[in-house]
Amino acid sequence: MKPHFDHVALIGLGLIGSSLGHVIKQHGLARRVSGTARSAATRETAMRIGFVDDVHEDPADCVRGADLVILCTPVGTFAKLAEQMAPALKPGAILTDAGSVKCSVIEAIKPHLPEGVHFIPGHPIAGTEYSGPEAGFAELFEGRWCILTPLPDTDDDALARLKAFWEACGSEVEIMTPDHHDLVLAITSHLPHLIAYNIVGTASDLETVTEKEVIKFSASGFRDFTRIAASDPVMWRDIFMNNREAVLEMLGRFTEDLASLQRAIRWGDGQALEELFTRTRAVRRSIIESGQDTPAPDFGRHGVPSQETEKPAKKTA
Amino acid sequence: MKPHFDHVALIGLGLIGSSLGHVIKQHGLARRVSGTARSAATRETAMRIGFVDDVHEDPADCVRGADLVILCTPVGTFAKLAEQMAPALKPGAILTDAGSVKCSVIEAIKPHLPEGVHFIPGHPIAGTEYSGPEAGFAELFEGRWCILTPLPDTDDDALARLKAFWEACGSEVEIMTPDHHDLVLAITSHLPHLIAYNIVGTASDLETVTEKEVIKFSASGFRDFTRIAASDPVMWRDIFMNNREAVLEMLGRFTEDLASLQRAIRWGDGQALEELFTRTRAVRRSIIESGQDTPAPDFGRHGVPSQETEKPAKKTA
Repeated sequence: MKPHFDHVALIGLGLIGSSLGHVIKQHGLARRVSGTARSAATRETAMRIGFVDDVHEDPADCVRGADLVILCTPVGTFAKLAEQMAPALKPGAILTDAGSVKCSVIEAIKPHLPEGVHFIPGHPIAGTEYSGPEAGFAELFEGRWCILTPLPDTDDDALARLKAFWEACGSEVEIMTPDHHDLVLAITSHLPHLIAYNIVGTASDLETVTEKEVIKFSASGFRDFTRIAASDPVMWRDIFMNNREAVLEMLGRFTEDLASLQRAIRWGDGQALEELFTRTRAVRRSIIESGQDTPAPDFGRHGVPSQETEKPAKKTA
Repeated sequence: MKPHFDHVALIGLGLIGSSLGHVIKQHGLARRVSGTARSAATRETAMRIGFVDDVHEDPADCVRGADLVILCTPVGTFAKLAEQMAPALKPGAILTDAGSVKCSVIEAIKPHLPEGVHFIPGHPIAGTEYSGPEAGFAELFEGRWCILTPLPDTDDDALARLKAFWEACGSEVEIMTPDHHDLVLAITSHLPHLIAYNIVGTASDLETVTEKEVIKFSASGFRDFTRIAASDPVMWRDIFMNNREAVLEMLGRFTEDLASLQRAIRWGDGQALEELFTRTRAVRRSIIESGQDTPAPDFGRHGVPSQETEKPAKKTA
């Protein structure tokens, strides 16, 4: 395949950065891949695994001459990185990122950018609960959405090139405004993570039920929350710090609804509960129909389907 | 294998009842399996699939002569069923159930029971989000916990026989008091389900983000909640109606903790967030170490493990 870019610079070599390195190498999407990471150990690991061609301690050295620069660090680091990289960015280069929030990222990066650099904020909706340079794999983006949130003055050609790059990584690309992205992610990703972190915290603090018991009987529901509550702490701290308005808005609605459920339980209003529980079942069906999950029952038994469902598909979208 | 019981009666032929039928047949744990279900269609399906030998419309007819009777209907039906079955129960028979709450189940059943019947409340911690007579499979209980909550006057021999039966179904048996069971399940199962139902409801009601978008981008976290929010509505209505005290207690703690997280987000207290998110990661590790889940990353890609993890095991515990 003809390379999409001559020289790609990956800023941050964790799960996203290393997966990008792998997929670029696997499909020959660039002639050269440079990487930077704060920790020398991470840079060494990246070179040893071989998903980058060269590593640099200084982000400016990493981006020098690159025609695609992808920020793959926690979003709280973006302002400082943009400031450091700015003088070394090549005119005509595309700068994008993989951050889970977009409005605050634009505020953090835009003021530092020199003329002639195409800044197109992005967000691959892909990840696992693992982090670090050894967690990456080339298939991470396969069949997953990647959202791009171009600015009013974004160059059409640059946008088309970035879109083609993500498609070559296996993703489907969706374009939306930064504001709308932040609302969509607040409900589909940020609030679910917040609630998962919260219930795992609540469960660990109980005096009446031991942590050992919580773990032992976790397959009855709790377990499903612990997986997403195991995601990278610094990345998630930064997401909540940087999508405050949208998260607080969604959290307010969630709490209001929960108070109403609490009231229904206290006063024995079974009808209200049954109505909600019936409605939510339909949402699950839509998610399976849209290919965003498999119908296989998941009660700690990957690969043991019930009689009425098929084996989990290898690729779901 | 020598049958554990001569004649087992399954009251309710949904996911649990049908799975019990399958595992009893597969391992020859009884000479005869009778079943009852309110709906004629369910009884016919059960006979067609063949996990029961005979079906009855009247629960009393079903339990007549049985030496093991297992209630597998939503817990809200237990009082009436106990009243109907009581005159037909054989002296010396063991009566147990599969309900997710235990204190209120004892209150509902005990007053109706004749002398000489051994009532031992039980709860297999196993399930999927599917329901009905076609959802069952023989391996459902394999490697899962089954909690028994004997009463102060429970006969030791009867308890030993029931324990051996569940072990023959593939389960590991844990004994605890009914009160403690209800607390443990409130945090490990009931609260997680309540929160999952709630967030799916909140997401469906938004005006700023469409349901289509929620579904499309659900793989970023939301999806994990929809699976458990697809569980049987009537069964879960009854659980919340019947474990009110413990659920409200756990919900109170959850809400308190969530308010404190909300405050941390509003005031930009990143350190508080990072501390919690780091602590919750350790709980996940313990769950994997205890065999209650696999370490495979689960981002809509069953069977595509990352480099550092093993393939999902077929059996996890």
